Amino acid sequence: MAYLVHRRQFTADWGHCDPAGIVFNSRFFEYFDTSSWALFEAALGVPPPRLGAAFDIMGIPLVNAGARFMAPVRFGDTIESFSTIGAFRRSSFEVQHRLLVDGALAVEGSETRVWAAVDKDDPARLKSRPIPPDVIARFQAP
Amino acid sequence: MAYLVHRRQFTADWGHCDPAGIVFNSRFFEYFDTSSWALFEAALGVPPPRLGAAFDIMGIPLVNAGARFMAPVRFGDTIESFSTIGAFRRSSFEVQHRLLVDGALAVEGSETRVWAAVDKDDPARLKSRPIPPDVIARFQAP
Amino acid sequence: MAYLVHRRQFTADWGHCDPAGIVFNSRFFEYFDTSSWALFEAALGVPPPRLGAAFDIMGIPLVNAGARFMAPVRFGDTIESFSTIGAFRRSSFEVQHRLLVDGALAVEGSETRVWAAVDKDDPARLKSRPIPPDVIARFQAP
Amino acid sequence: MAYLVHRRQFTADWGHCDPAGIVFNSRFFEYFDTSSWALFEAALGVPPPRLGAAFDIMGIPLVNAGARFMAPVRFGDTIESFSTIGAFRRSSFEVQHRLLVDGALAVEGSETRVWAAVDKDDPARLKSRPIPPDVIARFQAP
Repeated sequence: MAYLVHRRQFTADWGHCDPAGIVFNSRFFEYFDTSSWALFEAALGVPPPRLGAAFDIMGIPLVNAGARFMAPVRFGDTIESFSTIGAFRRSSFEVQHRLLVDGALAVEGSETRVWAAVDKDDPARLKSRPIPPDVIARFQAP
Repeated sequence: MAYLVHRRQFTADWGHCDPAGIVFNSRFFEYFDTSSWALFEAALGVPPPRLGAAFDIMGIPLVNAGARFMAPVRFGDTIESFSTIGAFRRSSFEVQHRLLVDGALAVEGSETRVWAAVDKDDPARLKSRPIPPDVIARFQAP
Repeated sequence: MAYLVHRRQFTADWGHCDPAGIVFNSRFFEYFDTSSWALFEAALGVPPPRLGAAFDIMGIPLVNAGARFMAPVRFGDTIESFSTIGAFRRSSFEVQHRLLVDGALAVEGSETRVWAAVDKDDPARLKSRPIPPDVIARFQAP
Repeated sequence: MAYLVHRRQFTADWGHCDPAGIVFNSRFFEYFDTSSWALFEAALGVPPPRLGAAFDIMGIPLVNAGARFMAPVRFGDTIESFSTIGAFRRSSFEVQHRLLVDGALAVEGSETRVWAAVDKDDPARLKSRPIPPDVIARFQAP
């Protein structure tokens, strides 16, 4: 099964870098989050703020995130980011991110997210819901 | 009129500093925000997440913020922060922040915030409301 | 004197927004910083990480920053940002930022920055230096 | 082998929370970083900015980071954070973080960091170095 790969490009800003002159690790998790929203918009054709309403969910909260930092990313570097679905499970899915600088892999990340709606028994809580088959279908690469 | 001065102390973290080795400017505006919530909690005795419910407002949104950076704040510096009300107006107020490192003034900030509730004519918008006199009274220094 | 206006466009990301669903104030100061670097690159033709070496300075540190928040910026909003020099003084300058959403002014910002080199008498400190006339000349609008 | 456990306590600030009203994931990686520096200071008795000079290294850069989010952390929550060494290897080590709210585990994190000095053959790069036995000894719980 091949899934859509979403590519975006951005720059490592001054305020993202630490005293070692390289992008501080938490910023990569911001990049991943932005990339996941962009991947969803590309696949589903729905702007991120309307995703919940369009699919009757509260959102796609994160339950797991991880990153491997293979090479430093420096102030001013152009980052090419590729994001795709690693796997769809019943009510959760994995997003994989690969960040390249000058064509070389610098950072790999993964996020596990849940397809989540309000719990009818306790509206203050979220509850995972099965991912609709037509959502999964739209992530498939042409 | 002398207003309560709230003091808190914290450290300049690695991830707050930029490649010049000093706290990046946007972080000071985070510090100011946290200090304003803490000042309100000290004066009103209400934990920040319950402020809205306690006073029938949506919050105290910012309409103006500014800072003067007089001396660099470096990784690991202990920051002593003093916050107080600069002025109460009808439905807005100013919070003033002074950040010291080793007893010397490093950064001065000010925020103008609005006492705001949901607009009854348009629930998607906020509307400023007069600040209750008993709220103002509780900010007065003993 | 009309100065070059640099325009860039970006999106209000999920992670930039607070529980009120709007961009948290400190993020605008990140946006301003990024815009200032982009304005300098556009005017001087030097990538930000090489600005110091190209002009024999340490950088353009901020001594003052301020913002007026006129309308909330929400998750997913497209922000159109215009930045220009407000004034050049002997060894400092002001950068002005205007952020629009759907063509309406949402946030105005200003930064005062210093043209700064290492102090020869104390290499741990920075010292302001006169801004070279040819630097100023390159910021003039065609 | 039991290692020192460092405890610190802090609050989930407004600016750390996203439109869902919970702490945004990248902030936890900031918390982890701050906790790791604090653990090192507690074990080694050296303030973080002097760690490099004290042990003839450039720093302890991150090569891997991950987190599991088990329960949402909300604005104003008091976070109790426990950090310890998971394992020391030849020139790298793992730091484990556990964050509790109201006594319940909310987030678990881990970081793999390298004991790194400047590479003599290429001063622009870092090179891992064996962790000195007396450094490891100081992390052992009494």
